[in-house]
Amino acid sequence: MAFDRKLKYGMVGGGPGAFIGGVHRMVAALDQKIELVAGAFSSSPEKSRQQGAELLLDPKRVYGTFQEMAEKEAGLPDGERIDFVSIVTPNHMHFAPAKAFLEAGFHVVCDKPMTTTVEEAEELCRLVGKHQAVFALTHNYTGYPLVKQARDFLRDGRLGRIRKVVVEYPQGWLSTPLDAEGMKQAEWRTDPARAGVSSCMGDLGSHAENLARYITGLEIEELCADMTTFVPGRRLEDDANVLIHYKGGARGILYASQISPGEENNLRIRVYGEAGALEWHQENPNYLHVRYLDRPSEVYTRGSGYLGEAAKAFTRIPTGHPEGYLEAFANIYRAAGNTMVARITGGKPAALDLDFPTVQDGAVGVSFIHKTVESGRKGGWVKAAYTPPA
Amino acid sequence: MAFDRKLKYGMVGGGPGAFIGGVHRMVAALDQKIELVAGAFSSSPEKSRQQGAELLLDPKRVYGTFQEMAEKEAGLPDGERIDFVSIVTPNHMHFAPAKAFLEAGFHVVCDKPMTTTVEEAEELCRLVGKHQAVFALTHNYTGYPLVKQARDFLRDGRLGRIRKVVVEYPQGWLSTPLDAEGMKQAEWRTDPARAGVSSCMGDLGSHAENLARYITGLEIEELCADMTTFVPGRRLEDDANVLIHYKGGARGILYASQISPGEENNLRIRVYGEAGALEWHQENPNYLHVRYLDRPSEVYTRGSGYLGEAAKAFTRIPTGHPEGYLEAFANIYRAAGNTMVARITGGKPAALDLDFPTVQDGAVGVSFIHKTVESGRKGGWVKAAYTPPA
Amino acid sequence: MAFDRKLKYGMVGGGPGAFIGGVHRMVAALDQKIELVAGAFSSSPEKSRQQGAELLLDPKRVYGTFQEMAEKEAGLPDGERIDFVSIVTPNHMHFAPAKAFLEAGFHVVCDKPMTTTVEEAEELCRLVGKHQAVFALTHNYTGYPLVKQARDFLRDGRLGRIRKVVVEYPQGWLSTPLDAEGMKQAEWRTDPARAGVSSCMGDLGSHAENLARYITGLEIEELCADMTTFVPGRRLEDDANVLIHYKGGARGILYASQISPGEENNLRIRVYGEAGALEWHQENPNYLHVRYLDRPSEVYTRGSGYLGEAAKAFTRIPTGHPEGYLEAFANIYRAAGNTMVARITGGKPAALDLDFPTVQDGAVGVSFIHKTVESGRKGGWVKAAYTPPA
Amino acid sequence: MAFDRKLKYGMVGGGPGAFIGGVHRMVAALDQKIELVAGAFSSSPEKSRQQGAELLLDPKRVYGTFQEMAEKEAGLPDGERIDFVSIVTPNHMHFAPAKAFLEAGFHVVCDKPMTTTVEEAEELCRLVGKHQAVFALTHNYTGYPLVKQARDFLRDGRLGRIRKVVVEYPQGWLSTPLDAEGMKQAEWRTDPARAGVSSCMGDLGSHAENLARYITGLEIEELCADMTTFVPGRRLEDDANVLIHYKGGARGILYASQISPGEENNLRIRVYGEAGALEWHQENPNYLHVRYLDRPSEVYTRGSGYLGEAAKAFTRIPTGHPEGYLEAFANIYRAAGNTMVARITGGKPAALDLDFPTVQDGAVGVSFIHKTVESGRKGGWVKAAYTPPA
Repeated sequence: MAFDRKLKYGMVGGGPGAFIGGVHRMVAALDQKIELVAGAFSSSPEKSRQQGAELLLDPKRVYGTFQEMAEKEAGLPDGERIDFVSIVTPNHMHFAPAKAFLEAGFHVVCDKPMTTTVEEAEELCRLVGKHQAVFALTHNYTGYPLVKQARDFLRDGRLGRIRKVVVEYPQGWLSTPLDAEGMKQAEWRTDPARAGVSSCMGDLGSHAENLARYITGLEIEELCADMTTFVPGRRLEDDANVLIHYKGGARGILYASQISPGEENNLRIRVYGEAGALEWHQENPNYLHVRYLDRPSEVYTRGSGYLGEAAKAFTRIPTGHPEGYLEAFANIYRAAGNTMVARITGGKPAALDLDFPTVQDGAVGVSFIHKTVESGRKGGWVKAAYTPPA
Repeated sequence: MAFDRKLKYGMVGGGPGAFIGGVHRMVAALDQKIELVAGAFSSSPEKSRQQGAELLLDPKRVYGTFQEMAEKEAGLPDGERIDFVSIVTPNHMHFAPAKAFLEAGFHVVCDKPMTTTVEEAEELCRLVGKHQAVFALTHNYTGYPLVKQARDFLRDGRLGRIRKVVVEYPQGWLSTPLDAEGMKQAEWRTDPARAGVSSCMGDLGSHAENLARYITGLEIEELCADMTTFVPGRRLEDDANVLIHYKGGARGILYASQISPGEENNLRIRVYGEAGALEWHQENPNYLHVRYLDRPSEVYTRGSGYLGEAAKAFTRIPTGHPEGYLEAFANIYRAAGNTMVARITGGKPAALDLDFPTVQDGAVGVSFIHKTVESGRKGGWVKAAYTPPA
Repeated sequence: MAFDRKLKYGMVGGGPGAFIGGVHRMVAALDQKIELVAGAFSSSPEKSRQQGAELLLDPKRVYGTFQEMAEKEAGLPDGERIDFVSIVTPNHMHFAPAKAFLEAGFHVVCDKPMTTTVEEAEELCRLVGKHQAVFALTHNYTGYPLVKQARDFLRDGRLGRIRKVVVEYPQGWLSTPLDAEGMKQAEWRTDPARAGVSSCMGDLGSHAENLARYITGLEIEELCADMTTFVPGRRLEDDANVLIHYKGGARGILYASQISPGEENNLRIRVYGEAGALEWHQENPNYLHVRYLDRPSEVYTRGSGYLGEAAKAFTRIPTGHPEGYLEAFANIYRAAGNTMVARITGGKPAALDLDFPTVQDGAVGVSFIHKTVESGRKGGWVKAAYTPPA
Repeated sequence: MAFDRKLKYGMVGGGPGAFIGGVHRMVAALDQKIELVAGAFSSSPEKSRQQGAELLLDPKRVYGTFQEMAEKEAGLPDGERIDFVSIVTPNHMHFAPAKAFLEAGFHVVCDKPMTTTVEEAEELCRLVGKHQAVFALTHNYTGYPLVKQARDFLRDGRLGRIRKVVVEYPQGWLSTPLDAEGMKQAEWRTDPARAGVSSCMGDLGSHAENLARYITGLEIEELCADMTTFVPGRRLEDDANVLIHYKGGARGILYASQISPGEENNLRIRVYGEAGALEWHQENPNYLHVRYLDRPSEVYTRGSGYLGEAAKAFTRIPTGHPEGYLEAFANIYRAAGNTMVARITGGKPAALDLDFPTVQDGAVGVSFIHKTVESGRKGGWVKAAYTPPA
């Protein structure tokens, strides 16, 4: 990233008590090329100020609303104003700030799922195209180096044509009615007004869908979902099991759960081809298991010299010293940031720098969530092919 | 087992080149209480003789047909004739010998799936009842000590009411058309005339169904199956994914596969209750993982003093010295054998001795296989509740 | 094993309450080629009779003493008398029966460590040579198929010249003074009169030494041992850590422990060569890990088609269905039994049939135990090269 | 950390091609409370400038020598000058800059091993005391949350008095003569002029020693080391195996290796007490295994609510989302930074903020390294008790 200053960004959301905002700030800081300089951290101006003070920001750049931030930052001189915004609010508050900042000429990093409706998702696709903005959606699991290696192994053909995908993302933390007991993270995720049509599929299943699509390149043709709400009083599903028909004949199982005690963030994927298979596990992400029909299975280790270009490019420390969630998440910022610098400096981003989830990925995810809800309501298979606006 | 002689048995099937027959013979021998004395090992009398000679059997008790064996053994004096028969033929050849030996007054050990039709399965249920025979179906995976412990943990309530079951049994050995290349084990398993309506579900899925039912006690109400044949020219499905609604509201995912390269016999079950969960893995069967909402997870080890009565009763060697497939399989013979001795000596079998899969378990399994085929053909959910004849 | 009858054997030891006797009986029975027909199961004739009755033996062949058994069996006609004896008594009672049965013309299977003194070990070497007997020492861990594969990988040179060996065998069951509380298995193992000069090294360390030597072929030149007795009142060491200089320059660490809580039978070996390394773990014995300087590591699975001849020959069931301790132990009986049949029938044993631990292995083990005790007492390095009588 | 500005620091070392300097910069940045503002990155002023430019530093604060940096920074006004220096040079270049910055009134973060001689280490102890400086040695592995939990479990007595410690740190990357082939990281680590008296023990063994001492609190009384140089032409040992007698009677095995192919950074510790044991593994650091005499073993997961205060305080993200090497390393900076702020603001550091390795830890480590070298040369046990200057 040849650039004579750090990228500057502002944050929407991420106030006191939030979780993912702090993650975005850590991962943006890690490589020391991106600097937080502004924020509208909360719908409460008081809380926004409090958060800004804790972050040692210039109080003039801590705003009461995202609209104010978009407008005032746009009016700052070049080199002083932010280059991009990070939107880390609950789902229902992604669309409006994304639209506002795109229209004000900023690049955008946005948390997932991108929007609560397909219509909003498609409008964002159009806005990104119109403004030629960089838009990165933080489906952070594709930032893991060995996820990139898995994708490359499927592309290079060594495992043959894909026949079956099994991807799962169970959690257990919503096994009890935390949402009814005032726990903030649980409340909004199970509230249709803030989470959208789905809780479990929106929060977890969309990551699983994105991971499977990133690694395999397969597109869904039909799906059959079984959506269940186990915890009494909860208004959205907390468990979701999906059978999938991919275009071209591959089959899939995708499931997500919030009521599986003892499961933490057990995102795991297995892909079976005609000649071999691979398995990757988010909770132990520095290893990629590759298996064959008639040879010993192999374990690939992050940081090793025998890995491919992408796996190497997104690695910070040598093999055997584990990288984790934050480093993978930071890779979304690294790639998107490099692409922004290229745009700002009039250069062309390197191919590896374009390796981050886009606004189109976001639209596919939102469509997927809605299709699972539709299937669950109907009780059977539904057509689910979807192509987002370019 | 207080009995002044060894139990004697004969075998139907298990001739040269067979696989499971040799397993039955090893596990029957392990505890030194059961003796092979007769056999109709092949539909070819010559091969039957050859097998009998290799097993050092008295040639007079090596028969050309199972009918001959049933008849002649029945005519031998008490203490000399066999006590039971083990039927280890391909699926389509279970029913006829089972019927013949039951009618000739013998107890039966039979391989799974029990029959190729529900009608035959139900007839066996009635015959077993009529003749008051001991009938053991070798769903061998329930013989593992920690599978018994898992069942007991779910019964004793520590994990709360069950919400979700995920059981899987992938294999990869049929990824290529071995069946078209003359490989005997592959041929009959994919031949509708010998395997019945299903290959993958019959061979593997029925084990998964039995394991889940044994551990959880849950009964299936509805299911939705996705059955696929991947290998060109194959006549039965080689991959099967099933969503399940259990009676009482629990949800399930059950899948089996023969085209998952690198998977060997990766039967694995996870059961999630309201308060905790457990996981067991056939390929590393000496450990049972128990997880909770708010406590460190636990690993239970086979052979440990803190285990329950059933897990202890079906263990042969101390903790840390792994037991495997044969010992678990032998537990079916041990329990059924003890029950036979009780019947023969007029005693009452101990509760633990009744811990083996019965003819009713077999009928449930056959019904399940047929329901998955029906659902797969229809493309959606089907009612699948089934109660076998007592 | 072309032989027209089963091999017959008698047992010395293995009476009520014993552990390893029952193991020997199970593993001898597993392949249905070896039959228990006689025994002197206890120093108490009453207990010997009781054990014989439980095993359904002919009471005439249940003896009060091993001397009586050796003498009377020797007098029985060919085809009726035993072919070999299995000695499963505590350590101090291996030598006398081994000598008696060798001199009476029988083959011998003997538990380890072979004797309590080097002199006795060497006398057995000479007796075996003199009587041209088959003598198998049950260092059972070398019976695991993947241990054989590990040996073959080191022989075939793919891992380069060996530089370092780390072998460990921790247990925890003697962490408390069970021996002072009347627990039979603990009592004799910590009693110098019955166990010999060492408890931990004799019981566990000798297995580790044998395993390392079997796999690597390396011979010990010098060693430095740290022997500790942690449990108050215990008379022999319950923890032993050893540094090793092998001939040719390789280095080793070998340790054993009886006071490591939570460790069961955690025998594990890692061997590092110039070009690669391997690791095998007794508690999960169906996998062999092979690692390289610049390639992904590999996992070899028992039962796979890509394994070598020895690993295949000593495997009973397909890959993914775990084999365990009993099957590995049974491989000692299988190999030694086949060699006995060759001797009896005047044939030549196949190379694979000679793959069992010999009387010379036993002598090397006894010497090793004594050298560690000597080093521990001295507090430093001692010369430990040893060559047993041929 | 209540402080109205970020802590400012300068770096000595960490120029182009260096490894650990980049790590220090990432981990210092992670929490956004510490800012790099100055540096003497290389003994070559040109390379130092190049590195400063790449880091977007003010060129006026990029210095040609560390002496110049110490002097000039000391002359800058309060709030502008650095608060501390990070020394990330090869071993022989730790002492001089540490001394210079301590004498100039700065706090110090220093890489390990602290110095190449015990005399230098002790002088640093005295200087730190004299100047009342904060001095943090980056034995980064003690920054892992579950390492802190392990320490707390041993302190709270649940595992009983410690009997045995097994700590190992094998690597394989120096299996071939990389140092003779111009690889920079290999060159200085095997060069006595830059690494000191030891390569393997200094680089890896000192981490193992520190980890074991941190977790157990045990002090070494005697040790017996076996030091070997396997790669021809190498001037320092590349493999080291040590037996240890701890004060109070516990026993230990500590080993480190650079010639163990396939091993990456396999730092692992097992501690056995009278009543239980624990195991932690750096390559999978989010899990702590606790085992008992008579209960199922437990797995503690980083981020869980049931963990203790220290484990929680040094965790950034929820359970199931893995943290790794960088986060643990950053915990050294977090604690030391908080302590510095307390000193600067005249406050008292919280107990948890003092949880970082000190100059005394560094002196103990340097003494340990020298004692292993002494023992290896002598070939036997040496007294190794050591108390650093307060």
